Amino acid sequence: MKKSTLVAALLSLGIAASAQQALGPGSGIVSPEINPDHTVTFRLRAPKAITVQLTGDFLPTMKRTVNYSGREMTMESAGIVDMKEGQNGVWEYTSAPLEGELYSYSFLVNGVRTMDPSNIYQNRDVATWTNIFTLSAEKGDKGYWYEVHDVPHGSLSHVWYNSPTLKAQRRLTIYTPAGYEDNPKAKYPVFYLLHGSGGDEDAWSDLGRTAQILDNLIAEGKAKPMIVVMPNGVYYNNAAPGAAVNMFQPTLTNSRSDSTVEIEDSFPDIIKFIEGHYRVAKGMYNRAVGGLSMGGRQSSALSRRYPDMFGYVGMFSGVVPPDEDGFDEALEATFKAKPRLHWIGVGSADGVKVNSLKLKEYCDAHGYPVTYYESDGGHIWRNWRVYLTIFAQQLFK
Amino acid sequence: MKKSTLVAALLSLGIAASAQQALGPGSGIVSPEINPDHTVTFRLRAPKAITVQLTGDFLPTMKRTVNYSGREMTMESAGIVDMKEGQNGVWEYTSAPLEGELYSYSFLVNGVRTMDPSNIYQNRDVATWTNIFTLSAEKGDKGYWYEVHDVPHGSLSHVWYNSPTLKAQRRLTIYTPAGYEDNPKAKYPVFYLLHGSGGDEDAWSDLGRTAQILDNLIAEGKAKPMIVVMPNGVYYNNAAPGAAVNMFQPTLTNSRSDSTVEIEDSFPDIIKFIEGHYRVAKGMYNRAVGGLSMGGRQSSALSRRYPDMFGYVGMFSGVVPPDEDGFDEALEATFKAKPRLHWIGVGSADGVKVNSLKLKEYCDAHGYPVTYYESDGGHIWRNWRVYLTIFAQQLFK
Repeated sequence: MKKSTLVAALLSLGIAASAQQALGPGSGIVSPEINPDHTVTFRLRAPKAITVQLTGDFLPTMKRTVNYSGREMTMESAGIVDMKEGQNGVWEYTSAPLEGELYSYSFLVNGVRTMDPSNIYQNRDVATWTNIFTLSAEKGDKGYWYEVHDVPHGSLSHVWYNSPTLKAQRRLTIYTPAGYEDNPKAKYPVFYLLHGSGGDEDAWSDLGRTAQILDNLIAEGKAKPMIVVMPNGVYYNNAAPGAAVNMFQPTLTNSRSDSTVEIEDSFPDIIKFIEGHYRVAKGMYNRAVGGLSMGGRQSSALSRRYPDMFGYVGMFSGVVPPDEDGFDEALEATFKAKPRLHWIGVGSADGVKVNSLKLKEYCDAHGYPVTYYESDGGHIWRNWRVYLTIFAQQLFK
Repeated sequence: MKKSTLVAALLSLGIAASAQQALGPGSGIVSPEINPDHTVTFRLRAPKAITVQLTGDFLPTMKRTVNYSGREMTMESAGIVDMKEGQNGVWEYTSAPLEGELYSYSFLVNGVRTMDPSNIYQNRDVATWTNIFTLSAEKGDKGYWYEVHDVPHGSLSHVWYNSPTLKAQRRLTIYTPAGYEDNPKAKYPVFYLLHGSGGDEDAWSDLGRTAQILDNLIAEGKAKPMIVVMPNGVYYNNAAPGAAVNMFQPTLTNSRSDSTVEIEDSFPDIIKFIEGHYRVAKGMYNRAVGGLSMGGRQSSALSRRYPDMFGYVGMFSGVVPPDEDGFDEALEATFKAKPRLHWIGVGSADGVKVNSLKLKEYCDAHGYPVTYYESDGGHIWRNWRVYLTIFAQQLFK
C-alpha cells in the first residue's frame, strides 16, 4: 500500500481526529504515570482553571454528613486533593506510594468532574464514570489478579435468554474458561454471580474484573475451570443500559427492595437456559451462587428457596438476616442438603456488617457450618473483587 | 427483606454514591433532552466556568488549517457553539431540529473537554471519548436501525483464537444472530467485518452498532441471519485496550501502513477457527468480507490474495487503488472466480474518494462488475454505519 492513502485518510477525518489533536495524546501529556517507587503522577492541561483537584479511591477518605430521608448520617467518600499548576497550564499531583490494586480517579476542574483525556481506561459504577488504572506491585498482589496477563483467556459473551416467568427476553453475561471451545466433550461447573443495586449484567465483568481474575486463577491452578453466569438481577430491567430498549440513567434505588422475590421466582429459567445451551456438569456440587450487596441477599434467599440447588453460596456485603417469617425452617432445609460452602464476606466499616454477623452467629448457634471473612473498608468494589478472588478458589473442589 | 438493610447499604457507600450525589442524576439535570420537535437541549452545571461550549457532530462543521508533516492542509472538524448560563450555574443550549441518527457530543468548559455527567452513554473512537445519544425520528430512518428495539437479539461474544501465523492468542468480537443457540442444526454464512486505523475488534460493535443494525435488519427480513466476525486488524496488537496485556493509548498511526500484508497472511487462521468452532455454511458464497478505511483496503487486498474465498467484498471509505505491481493479474483472477458483489462506498467529501473512483473506473474499463455508492460527508462513522446497513442487506441472497 502506498503512503498517500493513509495521508489522505488522515486528512479527511472529522471529530475524532480534531479532538485528539486538541486534547488527546497529541498533547504529549502522560497521565497517570506510574513511577518506579509506585507513586503515581496525574496531569491535566487546564490553563484557564481556578482550581484543579484530584479525587480517587487511593486518597485518604473524608467523612461528611448527609441527610438521608430526614436523618443526619455520616458518610465516607473518596478523598480530594488540590493539584498544582505548572508550565503551560498543566496541573500535576503525585500520590504516595500505592500497593498493587485497581484504582479509580477523576479530576475536578473548578468543581466540575472531568475525565482524564490522557487515559482511555474508564469504568461506570451505577451512573458515574471514573478513570481507572491498575498497579501491579508484585506477583500475587491484588493488582496482579486484576490485570491481563499472557495466559490462556476465556471468552466473555452477552447472550439473551427467554424467561417465561418474567415474560421477557433478558440478557446474560457469560464467561467460559479457556479450553471450553477446544474440548467439545468436557463439562464444566457453573458459578452464578449476582450484582448489586444500581448494577446490571455487565457490572461484574466491568468493575469486578471477573474474566481477568478467573483467567489468572485458572492459569495458576488456583481455581477450577468454570463457567461464570452473570444475570441481570433487576426483574423489571431486561438488560444493561445501552443493550436495553430504553435509554435509562441507572440509580441506586432502581432495584426495588422486593426484587429478591422476582429473582427467586425466575432463577430456574436462567439455570434451564444455561444447562440447555452450555456443556454443564449438573447437580448441586457443580453449582455455585454468589453476589454482592443486593446480589448477596439474593444468593442468601436463593439458597433457602431451592435447598438442593447450590453446593456453594457466597454472600458478599449482603445477607438476609435471620429474622424473616419462615427463615428457621428454610435454613434448616438448606443445610440438611449438605452444601459444601456458605461464605459470608464483609468489610469492617460496612453498614451491613451487623446483619452479616447476625447471620453468622445464628448459623454458629444452630451448628450450620459457615465461613466468615472480614476485610478492611466498606461497601466498595475493592472488597468485592477480593471476595470473588477468595471465593472462586474454593469452588468445585 | 426489610428496608433497614437497603438503608444500611446506602449509608456505607464510598466513591460512587458520593459522586452521584454531587454531580450525577441526583442533581436533577436532564441532558440531553430530546424535545417533541426533535430539537435537543443540552445542560451542564458549571457555576464557576468562564465559558461553556458544546461540540458535536450535529453542528455545522468548521474548516481549519492544520500542519501535517510539513504540509498545510484544510481539515474539517465538529462545530462548536457557546452555551448560555442560566439559573444555579446551569448552562444550556438547544439544537436545531435533528434527523434520526446516532450523535456524538462533548462539553468544553473553559476549553477543557468535559463529559456530560447526566448521560452515561459514551463511545470511544481511537483515544477520544464522547457522549452519544440516538434520535429516532420515524421508523426506518437511520436512528431507527441503530437503536435497540423489542426484536429477537443476537449474542455478542469476545473470543480468543490461536494464530499460528502471528504466533499469538488474539481476540475476536463475534455476533451470532438470534436463533443460533436454539437451532443446533442450522448453518450460517459469515461476514468478516474489519475496522480502521486506530480501531480494534470492538470498534464495529461499539461505534458501528453492528448488533443493533443486524438484529433490526434480520427481524424485518431485510438481511439474512448471519454470523459477523470482527477481528483485530493490527497484526502487532492481539486485543483492544483493556483486553490486551499492555495498557496502551491507541493512536491513528498505531496501524502501520504495512499491516495489510500481515492481515492477509494470517487471515486463514481466523477462518479456520471460525469454521472449526461455529456452525458455518461453507464456500465463497457463504463468506463476505468488508471493512472501513484501513479495513476497506484490507478487504480489497484479501479479495485479490484469495480469489475464491469471498463471494461478497465491501470497501467502505478505503480501497487499494489499481496501481500496485501485480494488481491487474490478481484482480483478473478475483473476478474470474465470479464474486456476487464488489461494493465500494465513499463520502463525497472524503479524501479517499479519488482512489475509490479510480478503482471503480478501472473495474468498469475491464468489465468487472462493481457497485459504487457515494454518500454525503467525509471519513466518519456516520457513513460507515450507513454502508454497513446497506451492504448487509445484499449478502448471501
